[in-house]
Amino acid sequence: MPKQVDHEHRRRQIADALWRVVVSRGFDGVSLRSVAAEAGVSMGLVQHYFRTKEQMLTFAMDSIGERVGERAAAELVGLPDPPPPRAHLRALLIQMIPLDEARRQEAHSLFAYFVGGVRDGVIGERMRSGVTLMRAFVAEQIAAGGVEPDPERATTILLALSDGLAAHVLGGYLSPADAVSALDAYLDHLFEQS
Amino acid sequence: MPKQVDHEHRRRQIADALWRVVVSRGFDGVSLRSVAAEAGVSMGLVQHYFRTKEQMLTFAMDSIGERVGERAAAELVGLPDPPPPRAHLRALLIQMIPLDEARRQEAHSLFAYFVGGVRDGVIGERMRSGVTLMRAFVAEQIAAGGVEPDPERATTILLALSDGLAAHVLGGYLSPADAVSALDAYLDHLFEQS
Repeated sequence: MPKQVDHEHRRRQIADALWRVVVSRGFDGVSLRSVAAEAGVSMGLVQHYFRTKEQMLTFAMDSIGERVGERAAAELVGLPDPPPPRAHLRALLIQMIPLDEARRQEAHSLFAYFVGGVRDGVIGERMRSGVTLMRAFVAEQIAAGGVEPDPERATTILLALSDGLAAHVLGGYLSPADAVSALDAYLDHLFEQS
Repeated sequence: MPKQVDHEHRRRQIADALWRVVVSRGFDGVSLRSVAAEAGVSMGLVQHYFRTKEQMLTFAMDSIGERVGERAAAELVGLPDPPPPRAHLRALLIQMIPLDEARRQEAHSLFAYFVGGVRDGVIGERMRSGVTLMRAFVAEQIAAGGVEPDPERATTILLALSDGLAAHVLGGYLSPADAVSALDAYLDHLFEQS
């Protein structure tokens, strides 16, 4: 079905243009008009794929989620199924730290969404749903393999830590290597491998 | 010197208007014009106090730093001088978590600055200087009272954790009480009081 593939390709092209707008002009710079201009297509075409700005914003956010999932899965190739909890957690969390240009752009976009979502109800709600899913996964891994007496609190700490590390690398306060080493140290503590 | 006091008061009024603009329209919504309108004064008056947008942005950022310092000092009243490292760290870090409306607005503003600073060289540089000072203070407290074999790494973790907790409360992913409990748990671990 070449037509379907083409549609998907177009939507991703538009989402990529949206990210470039977010990175260069901030969350508030996003509009059907600015994204169309950045993608080099007409506003009508953008509206053909996304009826509203919110649809476009959520599609773009979901596309980052997919890329993160694909990279995490690639890290886990060759490991038992299900993977050991520590390895499983690490494979996922490491995708959110700006270790290369692609992840840097993703992190920049997600933090811009985060700040935008404090005001924008639709995006804020979507971000909270994403965090809820993530939280359930992390808590499950910690409960399965960790030695923490309070897995819920350990989940809170691990999620805040990894977002904070991602922010500090993005802001230029921390090297990617130091961020990974800090994440590993906390995972070691959680799974008592230190 | 009533004139001097009046000047200081005016600058703070303008800084407050700037924060309201950041919170309602994002970092990119800040201009001499939009801040003057929000403050209900003329652009000429704003320019009398701040020659450039950057001056206004950095003054507003510094004013948050001052408020944080004042609140931290108030928490430490009655403790020995210098305060015990764990109490000193907690008094400071707790100021950045959105536990009330004032801190919520500060956190919102600082995260908007953070995202804006990824692109804006002047603000990014200023944010990095702030983090460098903060980092030195935190590392000193951990080295003085902590039991961590690697105080630099513990500093990295504590700073990332507290920023991440602040973000998660701001985004509505976490209750203020759970954030404080997570911070306390990590401080307990650092100072081996658990």
